[in-house]
Amino acid sequence: MSEESHQELGITESKEHSTGDWYAEVVQKAGLADYAPMGGFIVTKPRGYAVWERMQDYLDGWFKETGVQNAYFPLFIPESYLEREKDIVEGFDPEVAWVTHGGYDELEERLAVRPTSESIIAPFMSQWIRSHRDLPMRLNQWCSVVRWEATETKPFFRTKEFLWQEGHTAHRDMEDAWDETMTRLEQYQRLYEDVLAIPPLVGRKPEHDKFPGAHTTTTIEALMPDGKSVQGATSHYLGTSFAEAFDITYADEDQNDQTAHTTSWGLSWRAMGALIMTHSDDQGLVLPPTLAPEQVVIVPIWQEDNKEAVIDYAAEIEETLAEAGVRVHLDDRENRNPGFKYNEWELQGVPLRIEVGPNEVDEGTATLVHRPDGESESVDREGLDETVDEHLETIFAKLYASAEETLEGATREAESREEILGTIGQHGGYVKCGWCGDEDCEEPIKEAIAAEIVMVPLDRDEEPIHDECAICGEEAEETAYFARTY
Amino acid sequence: MSEESHQELGITESKEHSTGDWYAEVVQKAGLADYAPMGGFIVTKPRGYAVWERMQDYLDGWFKETGVQNAYFPLFIPESYLEREKDIVEGFDPEVAWVTHGGYDELEERLAVRPTSESIIAPFMSQWIRSHRDLPMRLNQWCSVVRWEATETKPFFRTKEFLWQEGHTAHRDMEDAWDETMTRLEQYQRLYEDVLAIPPLVGRKPEHDKFPGAHTTTTIEALMPDGKSVQGATSHYLGTSFAEAFDITYADEDQNDQTAHTTSWGLSWRAMGALIMTHSDDQGLVLPPTLAPEQVVIVPIWQEDNKEAVIDYAAEIEETLAEAGVRVHLDDRENRNPGFKYNEWELQGVPLRIEVGPNEVDEGTATLVHRPDGESESVDREGLDETVDEHLETIFAKLYASAEETLEGATREAESREEILGTIGQHGGYVKCGWCGDEDCEEPIKEAIAAEIVMVPLDRDEEPIHDECAICGEEAEETAYFARTY
Repeated sequence: MSEESHQELGITESKEHSTGDWYAEVVQKAGLADYAPMGGFIVTKPRGYAVWERMQDYLDGWFKETGVQNAYFPLFIPESYLEREKDIVEGFDPEVAWVTHGGYDELEERLAVRPTSESIIAPFMSQWIRSHRDLPMRLNQWCSVVRWEATETKPFFRTKEFLWQEGHTAHRDMEDAWDETMTRLEQYQRLYEDVLAIPPLVGRKPEHDKFPGAHTTTTIEALMPDGKSVQGATSHYLGTSFAEAFDITYADEDQNDQTAHTTSWGLSWRAMGALIMTHSDDQGLVLPPTLAPEQVVIVPIWQEDNKEAVIDYAAEIEETLAEAGVRVHLDDRENRNPGFKYNEWELQGVPLRIEVGPNEVDEGTATLVHRPDGESESVDREGLDETVDEHLETIFAKLYASAEETLEGATREAESREEILGTIGQHGGYVKCGWCGDEDCEEPIKEAIAAEIVMVPLDRDEEPIHDECAICGEEAEETAYFARTY
Repeated sequence: MSEESHQELGITESKEHSTGDWYAEVVQKAGLADYAPMGGFIVTKPRGYAVWERMQDYLDGWFKETGVQNAYFPLFIPESYLEREKDIVEGFDPEVAWVTHGGYDELEERLAVRPTSESIIAPFMSQWIRSHRDLPMRLNQWCSVVRWEATETKPFFRTKEFLWQEGHTAHRDMEDAWDETMTRLEQYQRLYEDVLAIPPLVGRKPEHDKFPGAHTTTTIEALMPDGKSVQGATSHYLGTSFAEAFDITYADEDQNDQTAHTTSWGLSWRAMGALIMTHSDDQGLVLPPTLAPEQVVIVPIWQEDNKEAVIDYAAEIEETLAEAGVRVHLDDRENRNPGFKYNEWELQGVPLRIEVGPNEVDEGTATLVHRPDGESESVDREGLDETVDEHLETIFAKLYASAEETLEGATREAESREEILGTIGQHGGYVKCGWCGDEDCEEPIKEAIAAEIVMVPLDRDEEPIHDECAICGEEAEETAYFARTY
């Protein structure tokens, strides 16, 4: 392999020492996304979009199995509609992109490019729901939304336009709506654990950091390699506040008017950012087999005198695996040597490499090499489809175990303000401590090291880990998890 | 069934006498879409979206089998980017929705909400394509686009925002790009024929009606019940014009710079409008089994003394069919009588109804009733899954045959201007005639009866059906198909 091609392929930044630059380089060099000409926007390239599509497929399937119906609401929301929810939620005004002209004409009323769709979906729910028989109503849409935040672009983490799904449901009572909130939270957790190979923390946002208007905001928090926490998905029990503002009522069995209880829940392509950042390394992208566009790449290694035999053998293996439902690619390019191919497919995040050369042909074997740890094993050609399946499972398990170990090592306790500051300042990660429940006690931590309370336990009755608030020393009401965030 | 509920369910307009109003009523009452508060926008309700999702699944699967990769480009296009294509295409200015403000700030450069994405995709193709090894490059995106046309809203046919897919590909030469153009055209034709149960005409737009900048625009034309033609999908061979404007070049095997040949092709939710309009009737929506969210509804008919037996029997049938992969729903609502249910499911377009009452239980049978023609048959419970499959196929075949018969009856020939005017004026549909190829000969027809040349044969060498142009009498160059259009 020439120096030149090595440069082009290699990741030059270090995950450990310059996580942000390293991440941006992996995203671009692995062909996941490019920067659009307008700051804050990206182009999602085929490899990136294929990962997002697979995540969608999992989640969408689970949604549908549990009674959710997809729909599509308009991209634009009239300004007067956005105004209607101002009683309950902070306005989106500071971050709305406004359409003011259609063709050559100025519009009579400005249209917001949706920052989220509560204010256009709720009025229709109000129309569509008449009777208790119309409940529960569970709607979801996959779409893009726009929030005009003036921050540095970070593909999938911070972009003015992002792809997401937003679920909006209405129920007859609190119990049913709470079950819904939990069902979606558990599906998000399942996506992180079983598909992304990321064990997250699962909890509740503190009262002062709930979704505005929500009764309870539940959250999935994922630890990133730089010690920061990413809010990976949220599921809100909204109580009756939105239903009251938008008149979502129904006639019960006795023909009495009742106010519905609503929920909303969303997951964005930020989950893809978390995925890329968690597993990838200085060789490039690492993907779990669940999401990799190619799970296996076969690299044949030949000399002129055995070329045909090696390539035929590799092609047979490709066929065997493809028939078994494995996403496999045979890289038989003539103009690249095996070393180049290894690097390229490592960069692109293929979980399992199969090397076959004249020895493998003679012995009826294949050499399997795991990404990212390079563990390799020579295995029999016979039964290769099952062996490959086992290895893919092992690779998934290794990724999960590694992320779990990192999470466990990065979750610490503290009993004083100084200890919180020192621990997060030095190690990052999460710090658990007793907390009185007062937002004022978060302030000194936020000011000093930009860490905040990312969650408290889901169970409101859970005893705090310490009796006293680590900051003010008053009686602790619950356990707070402090961390820096994205 | 009470008068009241009949009113609510029934379609009051007539397909034959007021096609437009009837269509709007079917769309709303079958729960496919609602009107948004802003003129020109609609809300796609779950039943409507489910049909669109199934159409997507078919087409997306075929695209991927034939080398297409999905991607996602930004919703917004800077004004200067749109300007770049003005040399080759008519500007979209008159119908662009402009974003002028982000939050409280006016933007330095206006952003167009994409009316189509050539001008943002082509510059990236130019970056990504370096060598002949990068070709062909086949990208597609499923997204919504906005065109600010000031016309009456007609769900799925005429809306300012619409859902579609847009494919954009680059190739090394004309032959490869032309093959691509034909592959996509054939896939659109297959979607119409095998999924929508609509036999379309397939052809080429006359030179003066091509996509601006295109070498050839191929089209799928579908006949609507009011005698108008709908352009159901288009596939463009763009030659090198876009590649030249956007500098899409590649190094060939000899390291010489070559200009790529490009294509683009798209199908919008207008295909769903064509589907609804073609098959539905005065009882409501009619859907082919390929696309129906529920293919079969089971309606049990019981009296108090046999209720349990009938419902158990119906539930067993539901299980049998669900296991066989049929999309089946058992309507065991207590508060609705069978007549009401029949009407409701007919309105909603379920292709096959299964009625089971005490007789069916005793005899071990089930009564199958087809939508839309009401043909019914008593069949054995034994082997019901296979019988149902056969009936679903028959229902599809009946829909297709009916649409085919309509198309054949509505395709006529003419040898003079008067004959064209008289035939379309009286019957609608298509009129084939000899044509000299001059746009001026289309004018008098357009002016008199608003009909135009919707297509000419795909094959440029095909002999015209008559020797003389029906309008000017000069030598005919090709066969023109005149029709009124949507």
